[in-house]
Amino acid sequence: MSADSIDIQPILNGDRLALSRVLTQIEKDSTAGRDALNHLFPHTGKAQLIGVTGAPGTGKSSLVNQIAYHYRHPVDDSQPQRIAIVAVDPTSPFTGGAVLGDRIRMRDLSGDPDVFIRSMASRGSLGGLARATAGIVQAYDAAGYDIILIETVGAGQAEVDIARLAHTTLVVEAPGLGDDIQAIKAGILEIADILVVNKADRPGVENTERALRNMLQLAHPAKRVFRHHGQQMEVDGADEQEYEALWIAPIQRTIATDGEGLTELLEHISQHRQHLENTGELARRERARLAAQLDELIESQLVSDWRASLKNGVYEHALDELEARHLSPYEAVQELVKEQKK
Amino acid sequence: MSADSIDIQPILNGDRLALSRVLTQIEKDSTAGRDALNHLFPHTGKAQLIGVTGAPGTGKSSLVNQIAYHYRHPVDDSQPQRIAIVAVDPTSPFTGGAVLGDRIRMRDLSGDPDVFIRSMASRGSLGGLARATAGIVQAYDAAGYDIILIETVGAGQAEVDIARLAHTTLVVEAPGLGDDIQAIKAGILEIADILVVNKADRPGVENTERALRNMLQLAHPAKRVFRHHGQQMEVDGADEQEYEALWIAPIQRTIATDGEGLTELLEHISQHRQHLENTGELARRERARLAAQLDELIESQLVSDWRASLKNGVYEHALDELEARHLSPYEAVQELVKEQKK
Repeated sequence: MSADSIDIQPILNGDRLALSRVLTQIEKDSTAGRDALNHLFPHTGKAQLIGVTGAPGTGKSSLVNQIAYHYRHPVDDSQPQRIAIVAVDPTSPFTGGAVLGDRIRMRDLSGDPDVFIRSMASRGSLGGLARATAGIVQAYDAAGYDIILIETVGAGQAEVDIARLAHTTLVVEAPGLGDDIQAIKAGILEIADILVVNKADRPGVENTERALRNMLQLAHPAKRVFRHHGQQMEVDGADEQEYEALWIAPIQRTIATDGEGLTELLEHISQHRQHLENTGELARRERARLAAQLDELIESQLVSDWRASLKNGVYEHALDELEARHLSPYEAVQELVKEQKK
Repeated sequence: MSADSIDIQPILNGDRLALSRVLTQIEKDSTAGRDALNHLFPHTGKAQLIGVTGAPGTGKSSLVNQIAYHYRHPVDDSQPQRIAIVAVDPTSPFTGGAVLGDRIRMRDLSGDPDVFIRSMASRGSLGGLARATAGIVQAYDAAGYDIILIETVGAGQAEVDIARLAHTTLVVEAPGLGDDIQAIKAGILEIADILVVNKADRPGVENTERALRNMLQLAHPAKRVFRHHGQQMEVDGADEQEYEALWIAPIQRTIATDGEGLTELLEHISQHRQHLENTGELARRERARLAAQLDELIESQLVSDWRASLKNGVYEHALDELEARHLSPYEAVQELVKEQKK
């Protein structure tokens, strides 16, 4: 073991302080963090990963709290699950701070040794954030948490990155969030495994739900009628067998502030998990997740190798030539990449 | 000139059809598109680039229309400017479609041969979108448009990328868009050169403006009182000379639907341009812009060179090893990057 390497045994044993320390190293992308992830990785692949995304104002954070609370306190006689949460805010690239209020969320869950929470604001690139989140999820997984909740503020590309990390992705909406929010839903609908209409005690909840239902039908052009989760849905003209494999995102109303709809929501999550296992989709998502992570790491490795190989001043010279319009950007790239191969 | 290369002379002469065709090639990132950009690049560097960003529901698109209209129809006796608009929607990564309503925006500007508009929905990665936008801006610049408006839906990283592309960045807000929108503003405030409170006829406009003003003061911790654009602002304890170089984002109310506040907004834009020129900041932003573009192109070049160099099946084998937990992601990266160097 080298001097700055981290002993992973305490993490595997469930030591919260040790876990917390390794997360800091993972966020920093330090050598010790990478080394720890190498050693933690063989112990991963057991946790269930649930992504929760939605626009500001939908009450996602409270919902994540409630989901965690319900897994800790099951209504049936099932085993309480160990829960870890990573909350990511890619929309505050500069402030890097207290946007995600840990204190608020901790009121329900504080003191529970089987709940672990980490908030992360974006410090660098979106790529860096995705890398760090993937690392944190792996550390949680190795530390034996049964369920990992990945929360992000809904914002385009970030949702896609979540969808790649999670087994089941919840997209959260709420009534009355302004007029052209509909436009955004169209994009994120395609990554939603379950749609949640939170703040369902607000006026306009029927409109929000109807809009979502209409968009679902657009996404799956209507041909025949199919019953799914007790909802009557029209799906495209696939045969009966394909119907079995097709998952149509259910829409669940919740009121996160008082826990309404949470039992049903957990039931949908469990059904989706079952669906993933039955159809072989779980294995496919696992592989896609690993591939996405691999690609990100390769990209950053290639760039840093290239930077390290550049002689002093070569990059600045290319930039000067670019500014003077002696080289075009594509020509400058050719020069700089050729430079490396010498 | 090779078979598929594009004759750039018609573009330089202002031929709209030729411009439109080259934009399609640039979006596709085709060889012909890259080749055209190489030839167009020496003709760039003249246009003024204005970024406009804001959350859904703020009325950005109408505002962009009005800005364009006012540059076409100046209230004083200045020359009408030639305007090109690129509207980017990174929040709809899948649907790739009609979110940005060209028809709506064209009502004011249609038939004007000195206004050119292109909408782009995100098709691939955020990186790909930034690359395509940079290319489109360069083509507009070479085609002789005086002012280029770059519009995006506000969503974290996308705003940062705009800020890098534009000389002047407008961040658009509107009253009454839900509760935790404040959290987002904190991040984007730092890229705002001018803050616009649109839909200023709505209730709550004073609250929105006050919140923005408070956040501006947080961003520039209060020490002394400084007058700027007629607004009394407190700024940090820099000496008088530094005050001259400091730009504090003015807040401008507008009602884009009837053009109110637009003359004042254009005045702020012009003052900001003057500030950039006086302080040398314009040259610094130009260089940062070119560097960001260069970095993006280099990254994508390195990745594609690496992919091309891999033998068949090597990547899939590494992924298999990863799935089996025989290799960790970092170990797999080492294997795959080493593979290239053989």
